[in-house]
Amino acid sequence: MSNKIFSFSAVKSGIKYSDKYDFALIYSNTPCNCAATFTTNKVCAAPVIVSKERMANPIQAIVVNSSNANACTGEMGLENAKNITSTIGSALNIDPESILAASTGVIGVQLPAQKMIDSIPDLTSNLSGNNQNLFAQAIMTTDTVPKYVKKTFIAGTKTYTIEGFAKGSGMIAPNMATLLSFIVTDAPVEKNLLRDIFFDAISKTYNCITIDGDMSTNDSAFILSPLSDNYLDEKGTNIFKDTLYQLLEELALILVKDGEGATRCVKINVKNAVNNDEARICACAVAESLLVKTAIFGKDPNWGRIACAAGYSGAQLDQNTLSIYFNDIPLLLSGTPVGYDKDRLIEIMNSESYEINIDIGSGDGSWSYWTSDISYDYVKINSEYTT
Amino acid sequence: MSNKIFSFSAVKSGIKYSDKYDFALIYSNTPCNCAATFTTNKVCAAPVIVSKERMANPIQAIVVNSSNANACTGEMGLENAKNITSTIGSALNIDPESILAASTGVIGVQLPAQKMIDSIPDLTSNLSGNNQNLFAQAIMTTDTVPKYVKKTFIAGTKTYTIEGFAKGSGMIAPNMATLLSFIVTDAPVEKNLLRDIFFDAISKTYNCITIDGDMSTNDSAFILSPLSDNYLDEKGTNIFKDTLYQLLEELALILVKDGEGATRCVKINVKNAVNNDEARICACAVAESLLVKTAIFGKDPNWGRIACAAGYSGAQLDQNTLSIYFNDIPLLLSGTPVGYDKDRLIEIMNSESYEINIDIGSGDGSWSYWTSDISYDYVKINSEYTT
Repeated sequence: MSNKIFSFSAVKSGIKYSDKYDFALIYSNTPCNCAATFTTNKVCAAPVIVSKERMANPIQAIVVNSSNANACTGEMGLENAKNITSTIGSALNIDPESILAASTGVIGVQLPAQKMIDSIPDLTSNLSGNNQNLFAQAIMTTDTVPKYVKKTFIAGTKTYTIEGFAKGSGMIAPNMATLLSFIVTDAPVEKNLLRDIFFDAISKTYNCITIDGDMSTNDSAFILSPLSDNYLDEKGTNIFKDTLYQLLEELALILVKDGEGATRCVKINVKNAVNNDEARICACAVAESLLVKTAIFGKDPNWGRIACAAGYSGAQLDQNTLSIYFNDIPLLLSGTPVGYDKDRLIEIMNSESYEINIDIGSGDGSWSYWTSDISYDYVKINSEYTT
Repeated sequence: MSNKIFSFSAVKSGIKYSDKYDFALIYSNTPCNCAATFTTNKVCAAPVIVSKERMANPIQAIVVNSSNANACTGEMGLENAKNITSTIGSALNIDPESILAASTGVIGVQLPAQKMIDSIPDLTSNLSGNNQNLFAQAIMTTDTVPKYVKKTFIAGTKTYTIEGFAKGSGMIAPNMATLLSFIVTDAPVEKNLLRDIFFDAISKTYNCITIDGDMSTNDSAFILSPLSDNYLDEKGTNIFKDTLYQLLEELALILVKDGEGATRCVKINVKNAVNNDEARICACAVAESLLVKTAIFGKDPNWGRIACAAGYSGAQLDQNTLSIYFNDIPLLLSGTPVGYDKDRLIEIMNSESYEINIDIGSGDGSWSYWTSDISYDYVKINSEYTT
């Protein structure tokens, strides 16, 4: 069903490739509250700087380009980002200060701004409530699948929709947004509440996935919800919160599964840590370990690398109470290795998704991360990216 | 020339492979001062625990095995390490408390202790001042070359020798020792001074190399120097210090060049940071970035990844004063990309060693790291290690 508030568009502006949708737009026919998380990288892209400055405003559009990050581009990069939003503002007859921007692609190359500006009439005239697939496709870089999830929920007598887009395949690390993501909903949620709910959901989803541990210069995640005189009540807000969490979790898993060269998606569960934060630190180190990720790729039950990463994570742990399982098969129990059925273990490691369970044995804290493996294709993709 | 104080030995005890030297010994005919650094991993191997307990004693021997880490092996692992040192003590007629231990290899598998104990008569009877190459070979795991460096220096009227061995190719991270290394010298240096000099040299050599960022459970570096009534004077100590630093730097470079699957050895120099520590933080993040390392492998001048890693390193920096060079070719000057001669850049990236120079532009702190690239062979080696 066509979206009645938000419309989407994309064109092939020829930023880097002549035949790729690379310039995209989300437009709302009504001003929106916006919450957003941005990269904490001190080298951050021009669109991040521009968007941050405009976060206090009611928002009506987000313009996105792939194939060029507009990062490390100095003053000219900032001017380009501002000129593009100004031109879109004129075309849509809205205040440029109500337009946010995001970019993704190669760092350190100036945008072909004139080409992009020339294609803005096409971009704005193609807006449609049915162009979700086109938009999802246009924001892709090394992604192999477009990433779009739609969910509906009922609050009171009304049915609301949340639609989410994400882009990301490499340079994915568990810190702040870790990717580009755009969420739009017709459910009206008060601005501060929207921010709290969005940040909380992100902390347990996008911030708990890792592909290669590199935090990008462009990470941004946005949510738009219409300004209203009649915001969702508490009950409705709770349903919205649950639905948003499910949507972000689904997108996060799609991101990990589409990790550059990934062949496996593994959930790292840490339990019985001193507290949740110590569990998170431990899960993160295991999820990011290159040796764990290559062992997953090789279907090599080399669980010692998991113990090793847990040990150097910095999380509080005593190796004498540490236990490790693949799904429900124990490999280490309270610091002592145990015999295991190798055939069953290899069967688990051959499946596309499985769980590595780590029991610290010292408290009731827990946390989970999702990680992909590192394969030959990861190296191939990343050694041939700009050339 | 044969070493008159230290002798070396190695045997094929069949720990994992029937035809590999895997069990090795250093023996000193006189009690020694010993300084050592150990992994800070909370999951640490049995030999690390045993050696730490004995560090206050005069030391006369170090026993090392490859092919098995004796880590995550619980009580039995500790007993095995102690039994092996006791049996060697009896064979050499020295106090077992004067014997240190180190292991390297797969984690989570019990040592075949009886096999090793059975081979101790051979191990102790083969000791010779000329067996350095044998010893260096026996401590290798995925290393492709034995790592041994010898240096001499003159202090007063005497000529002294320092001999160093190292082992390490993967699971190399810039924290504590990052590998196994054994240094022996006939130069008598007072114990506290020996420790200070050794730690200082390690902080600038072994702690400044990275291959895959995983800190092992077994990292240990030892130095042995004879107890004496007549320690080196200040002048002699300074010459010793310089020589030791050169030796460790040489070994560190050999380690990076032999990084698992490595094809390049690149020095990351950070200068004009707020202070040395901020420079170190920045250099470390760039050296460890998987995206930088794959770009080095692909000879892809994707310097944006370097700016990105510098930005998320946590080091204080303003992107508007950041400059990046490959050797002396500027790519980014004060936050703005500059045109460059691509052919010259590719020529640099084709050479086995080159420098990436990062100028933070805000102080006078500097630091350097050495890093290897991540290649297909890295993935191959690490996805097929235990199976």
